[in-house]
Amino acid sequence: MKPAVLEELREALGPAGVIADPTRLLAYECDGLALLRQKPDVVLLPRTTEECARAMRILHREKVPVVGRGAGTGLSGGATPVEGGALIGFARMRDVLEVNVADRYARVQAGVVNVDLTLAVEKHGLFYAPDPSSQAACTIGGNVGENSGGPHCFKHGATTRHILGLVIVRDDGSVLDLSLPRPDPDGFDLVGLFVGSEGMFGLATEVTVRLVPTPPVTETFLAIFTDLDAACDAVSDSIAAHLEPSALEILDRLTIEAVEDSVFAAGYPREAEAVLLVEAEGTDVEVEATLAPMKAIAERRGAIEVRRARSATERKKLWAGRKGAFGAMGRIAPDLYVADVVVPRTKLRELVAESTRIARERRLKLANVFHAGDGNLHPNISYDRRDKDEVRRVLEASDEIMKVVVAAGGSLTGEHGVGLEKQEFMSLVFEERDLHAMCRVREAWDPGRLLNPGKLIPVHACREMRGTERPR
Amino acid sequence: MKPAVLEELREALGPAGVIADPTRLLAYECDGLALLRQKPDVVLLPRTTEECARAMRILHREKVPVVGRGAGTGLSGGATPVEGGALIGFARMRDVLEVNVADRYARVQAGVVNVDLTLAVEKHGLFYAPDPSSQAACTIGGNVGENSGGPHCFKHGATTRHILGLVIVRDDGSVLDLSLPRPDPDGFDLVGLFVGSEGMFGLATEVTVRLVPTPPVTETFLAIFTDLDAACDAVSDSIAAHLEPSALEILDRLTIEAVEDSVFAAGYPREAEAVLLVEAEGTDVEVEATLAPMKAIAERRGAIEVRRARSATERKKLWAGRKGAFGAMGRIAPDLYVADVVVPRTKLRELVAESTRIARERRLKLANVFHAGDGNLHPNISYDRRDKDEVRRVLEASDEIMKVVVAAGGSLTGEHGVGLEKQEFMSLVFEERDLHAMCRVREAWDPGRLLNPGKLIPVHACREMRGTERPR
Repeated sequence: MKPAVLEELREALGPAGVIADPTRLLAYECDGLALLRQKPDVVLLPRTTEECARAMRILHREKVPVVGRGAGTGLSGGATPVEGGALIGFARMRDVLEVNVADRYARVQAGVVNVDLTLAVEKHGLFYAPDPSSQAACTIGGNVGENSGGPHCFKHGATTRHILGLVIVRDDGSVLDLSLPRPDPDGFDLVGLFVGSEGMFGLATEVTVRLVPTPPVTETFLAIFTDLDAACDAVSDSIAAHLEPSALEILDRLTIEAVEDSVFAAGYPREAEAVLLVEAEGTDVEVEATLAPMKAIAERRGAIEVRRARSATERKKLWAGRKGAFGAMGRIAPDLYVADVVVPRTKLRELVAESTRIARERRLKLANVFHAGDGNLHPNISYDRRDKDEVRRVLEASDEIMKVVVAAGGSLTGEHGVGLEKQEFMSLVFEERDLHAMCRVREAWDPGRLLNPGKLIPVHACREMRGTERPR
Repeated sequence: MKPAVLEELREALGPAGVIADPTRLLAYECDGLALLRQKPDVVLLPRTTEECARAMRILHREKVPVVGRGAGTGLSGGATPVEGGALIGFARMRDVLEVNVADRYARVQAGVVNVDLTLAVEKHGLFYAPDPSSQAACTIGGNVGENSGGPHCFKHGATTRHILGLVIVRDDGSVLDLSLPRPDPDGFDLVGLFVGSEGMFGLATEVTVRLVPTPPVTETFLAIFTDLDAACDAVSDSIAAHLEPSALEILDRLTIEAVEDSVFAAGYPREAEAVLLVEAEGTDVEVEATLAPMKAIAERRGAIEVRRARSATERKKLWAGRKGAFGAMGRIAPDLYVADVVVPRTKLRELVAESTRIARERRLKLANVFHAGDGNLHPNISYDRRDKDEVRRVLEASDEIMKVVVAAGGSLTGEHGVGLEKQEFMSLVFEERDLHAMCRVREAWDPGRLLNPGKLIPVHACREMRGTERPR
C-alpha cells in the first residue's frame, strides 16, 4: 500500500486505528478456517460509523479490496484476507448504543461480543437469542455477516430472525441508515438481504436487534445411549411428535471422550455411544409438558439413563461439555476441521452414518457434535496440518460429505456460511442461472467487486457474467 | 396489443389462457384498493411454470410491462394493472404438487388459495400458519408478493418466515429454480429477498412452504371493555409480562356495531367500547399458563366481562366477527379504505387516539380493528366514492395517519405492502440514498423496468437514478 494512502488512513482513524506492521498483521491472516491463510496489506480498526465510512472512501478511490472481520471465529473463511487488500476489524466498536426494554430491542455497534449483549440486558429480563458456540468471542456484526446459528436457534431461529435494522457503510463509503427497528420491512427487505451476505454488500457498523424475554424456567436433561442411531431416532421421533424443546443436541462417543479428557469435563458417561442434550424453556408447566414426553421417547429408543439437571450449576455443567466440545477436540489432534451441513431431519441417522463411513475410508478421525433438532450436522475431522497427505484426505472427505448431503436434499451450510471454503460447491446446489442472479444482486451493491471478492459465489460464475449482459 | 402478438400468446397458453375482450377485462381493473383503477391490455392465465415462462419471453421481446395477480384481494394496489400492460393471473395454477409430512413442507403452485393449503394438509396434523383475513380467497403467490400477515402471525411470523423455496420466472422468461426447501439459505438469501418484492423481481410460479404442527389445544377468550384505551393498555401489559398468546386482536365500538348488524354477528356486546380477542395454542397446561394471566391483566385493566369459548363452535363464532369485520363495514358506507401501519407497542393507545382524531377532524367515520399484539393498526375509513370531496378527505386522513405513525417510530405497512398506494410515502421513511439502493437491486432483477413498474419505490427515485451511476 502506498505510504501516502497509509498516512491518509492514519489521519482518518488515528494512529491506533491502522495496523501495517508485518508482525502484527500475522494475527489477521486467517479466521477459524486455519487451512487457508493470506496476510492483508493493512488492518483498519475504526471506532465509529463515520470513521469506517471515511476509510471506505479512501479505499474505494484507491480500488483496494476490503474484507470485514468480527472476532475471526468464522469457520468458512469469510474473513480470510484478500491479497493486496485491507481488513476492517470491529474490535474498537463495542458500545451498546441503546436498550429499549418496553419495545424489546437494542442498538449496538457491530463489534459488540455476542454474550456481552445478553449480559447488558439480562437485568431487564431479556436476552439475545442466537448463541453460537463461540458466543464468548464472536461479534454481533460477524453474526450478521454469516447469519450465524447456535444450539437455541432450533427454537428461536438463526440471526436473520433477530435483526430489526442495520447501518451499512457501502463500497464507496456512503452510509445507508436502515436502523429503525421494523418488524416488517417497508419496501424491499434490504436488511434481510444483507444478513448472511458475508461482507459482499457492505459493512454493517451498527445493528438493531430483537431482544427476547428470559423464560421463567429452563431445564435440561441428558439422555445416554449405547447407540448413536438410537439417539438420532429419538430426535426424529420428537419432531414427529411435534415437541419443540429449545435445544436438541447430540454428541457422539469420540466427542464425549475428548470432552471428558479435557478441562470441559461435564460428567458425560464414558460408556455412552451418544448423549442427547435436551433443553426446554417456559413456565414450570410448559417445561414439564415438553420434557416428560421427550424422556419417554428417549427411553423408548433405548436410553440407558436420563439425567435431569436440577440446579443452574448442574445445567451449566451439562452445557459446558457441549460448548467446549470444539476446544476439547484439540486433545485428539492439533487441528480441527468443522464441517457444517444441513440434512432433512428424517435422514439424520443415515447421513451421520454416511459421514462417518466417508471419514473412516480415508483413515480420518471424525467426531459428531450437532444441532440435531434442525438437522444441522457438524462432522468434525481432527488432523495435523503438517501432514500434507492427511490434509488432502480431510479436504476430500469434506467434498464427499457435501456431495452426499446435497444429493439427499440437504444444504451446504447451516450457520457457518459459504465463505472461501465452499464457494466452488455452490454449483452443486445452484445452476448457472441461479448463480448469475446472485452475481447481478452483488453488482447492485458493489459494481467494482471490491467487497470480500472471491467468497460465496464461485469465481467462474461472476467472471463469466462480466460483459455478458443479456440481450435487451 | 398487436394482433400477431395476441395470436402468439394464444398459441403459448391456449385460447382459455388469454383474455382480451374489453368486457371481461373490466373484472381485472383494480385489486382491493378500489380507489385506483386501470384496465390492462390483456390478461394471461398460464397453467404451468413453462407456460408462464413462454408468455414472459414474448412480453419481454415486445417490451410489454407485466403485473402479477393472485386473487386481487391486496389492499395497496400491488396488482393494479399498468397502462398498455399485461396482467398475469394465477387462477389456473391451483395444484398442490407435493406434501412432505415427515419433513413438514409442501410445494404448491402459486395460485393455490391460502385456506385450501391448510385443508389439504390438516389430515396430517399440520397447517399453513399465515392467515390473512382474506384467506378464503387470497393465494399463496399473492401472499409471497406482499409478505402477507394475519392474526396468528403474532405468534408464527408473517409469510417470509414460512417460505422455504420458490420457482421464479424472470423478466425475460428464464426460470430460477430455488424450490429445494432450505431452512437456511446457501449463499445470498434470494428467496428472502423475493418475498415481499411485490412482483418487481419476477413472478413466483411455485412455492415451497413450511408446515406447522396443529396444536393439540386452542382456546379463545373475549374481554369486554368500556374504554378503548384500557384494551390497548391490557395488550401493552401482556407484552411487558412476556405473555405470548397466538393472537391478540382489538375491535372498537364502530366495528362491533357493524359486525353485530351484519351476517357475521358474533354475539359481541353492543355496550362495549372495545373487545379484545385472545387466543392461545399448545397443550392444556400451556394454554392455561397463557390465558390465566391474560385474564387477570384484562380484569385489572377494567374488563367488565371475560367470555371463554369452550367449544370449537363458540370459538369459530368469536373469530367470525373478526374475520368478517371488513365485510361488515359495508353496512356503514359503500366503500372502505383499510389503512395498514405498524406502531411501537408501547404507543398503541396514543396512536389509535391520534388516528381517530385525524379522521374526526375531517368528518370521516373511522373504525379500528387491529392486530394489537404486533402493533399493526388498521384504521378503517368508510366512505362513498361518488362523493369526490369525501374521497379527498379520506386520502388526506390516510396521509396524515402515515405521517404521525412514522414520526412515532412506526412503519408504513404491516402486511398489505406498499404497492401503488404508498410508494410516494416511502420518502417519509427512507432517504434518497436508501431508495437508490433499492433501485439498484431492482435493476439487478429487471433492467428493462417492465415488472410492476410504478409500484413500491417512488417513481422519482428510480427515474433520477437512470443514467446517473456513481463514479467508479
